[in-house]
Amino acid sequence: MDAVTVEEPLEIRVGGVVITVTMRTPGHDFELAAGFLVAEGIVGAPGEIERIEHCRETASPEEEGNVLLVRTAAPAPALDRARRLHLTTSSCGLCGKGSIEAVMRKFPAVGSRARVDPVVLAALPERLLAGQTSFGQTGGLHAAGIFALTGEPLAIREDVGRHNAVDKAIGRLFLDGRLPLSETVLLVSGRASFEIVQKAVAAGVPAVAAVSAPSSLAVELARESNVLLAGFLRDGGFNLYAGEERLFSRPASAR
Amino acid sequence: MDAVTVEEPLEIRVGGVVITVTMRTPGHDFELAAGFLVAEGIVGAPGEIERIEHCRETASPEEEGNVLLVRTAAPAPALDRARRLHLTTSSCGLCGKGSIEAVMRKFPAVGSRARVDPVVLAALPERLLAGQTSFGQTGGLHAAGIFALTGEPLAIREDVGRHNAVDKAIGRLFLDGRLPLSETVLLVSGRASFEIVQKAVAAGVPAVAAVSAPSSLAVELARESNVLLAGFLRDGGFNLYAGEERLFSRPASAR
Repeated sequence: MDAVTVEEPLEIRVGGVVITVTMRTPGHDFELAAGFLVAEGIVGAPGEIERIEHCRETASPEEEGNVLLVRTAAPAPALDRARRLHLTTSSCGLCGKGSIEAVMRKFPAVGSRARVDPVVLAALPERLLAGQTSFGQTGGLHAAGIFALTGEPLAIREDVGRHNAVDKAIGRLFLDGRLPLSETVLLVSGRASFEIVQKAVAAGVPAVAAVSAPSSLAVELARESNVLLAGFLRDGGFNLYAGEERLFSRPASAR
Repeated sequence: MDAVTVEEPLEIRVGGVVITVTMRTPGHDFELAAGFLVAEGIVGAPGEIERIEHCRETASPEEEGNVLLVRTAAPAPALDRARRLHLTTSSCGLCGKGSIEAVMRKFPAVGSRARVDPVVLAALPERLLAGQTSFGQTGGLHAAGIFALTGEPLAIREDVGRHNAVDKAIGRLFLDGRLPLSETVLLVSGRASFEIVQKAVAAGVPAVAAVSAPSSLAVELARESNVLLAGFLRDGGFNLYAGEERLFSRPASAR
């Protein structure tokens, strides 16, 4: 017998509009919703989310506990942005542009002047692992951690979906009123894709590290956004792809 | 210096409707589109896709080479299904049900009576690795392979997105007129989620194997759909989660 990672759909609605359905590991759902809305540019400050609650009038057993209703405090601009996102991503292809632009939406570059100690960076994977549940350590879950520049873990979350783990960690800190995360490092247990860096930039995170490889667009976005991007962070070393100027000193392994 | 996996957006339109934007590794794009449409239930037989072409009138540099236009031979029912999908996934949340159901759409159970030799199964990861590019072997890409019951590789594809690798492999065989894939095994280099099993069922694949862990919903769907599901397929052994009756004999490691 073998334990299996739980996966269920989560539908997030803002002001009655379905923003997304994501396959996620149940738990920390409010954080997931909050983090997702930050990454979509729908909310930026904690006051902009007035309430998150589970939908009580679900239409099918599959929806039970799996539909979240988000009420934003300021219908404009948050709701406007939600509606625009909804319209853009579902717009008729004949209208031409829109969809790719919506997916690749850009946030302002990270203004923080934070610098990262390579020794602290190199020790983060061990701290991430220590913060994971024993089940997550078996490899069925992706993990994401937000760390202070000292290496102190601020939020560590796991999920069957790698994007969800990042949304949950950022969402936790958003709900605690700690955005922008100007003095932090985001570490993901897997690869760094465009969307992972995009989520970091949306939350103001100046440094992203991945245990595995980054993608070309992740590197490009990190460079444009003034974000340090480290990959293959393991065994005490890493490759540096962007933001060299954010390192206190350059270890041999980062050349 | 270190090579980086290429990641770019791909927008797929059917009859002028944007069906999806996915972040993918460029290459085998027509296969990706075909496989995606099979998984969405929009097309089932190769004749139903009349033409796939790159959009020549792109509105921005980011769209260049990244927008595919699909023309279906039979506007009904294929186009109807596309429009319904479009409407359902973008429907107003107030209408209640729809979105989760659309994401979790079910296909008929796999009718094939194919049985799998556990010795052949255990040898597939090595064959998948042998079929990957040297770059993919470095770990920046996910891989998916469709194999005959003898273990012969029929289509092996890689992508920065795990779902895309599966769509490309299935799409290749769809375009070759080989669906339903009644006598095959799908192997993925990572985990087996609900959507991976869903794609296999849509293409009629009777057995799914993953090098890493399956999720709870993947196991549930495999059991409902008469599909063998093996996880942690590595070092000559595997865990069996569904479809025991499809194994020729049960090795000790599968108990």
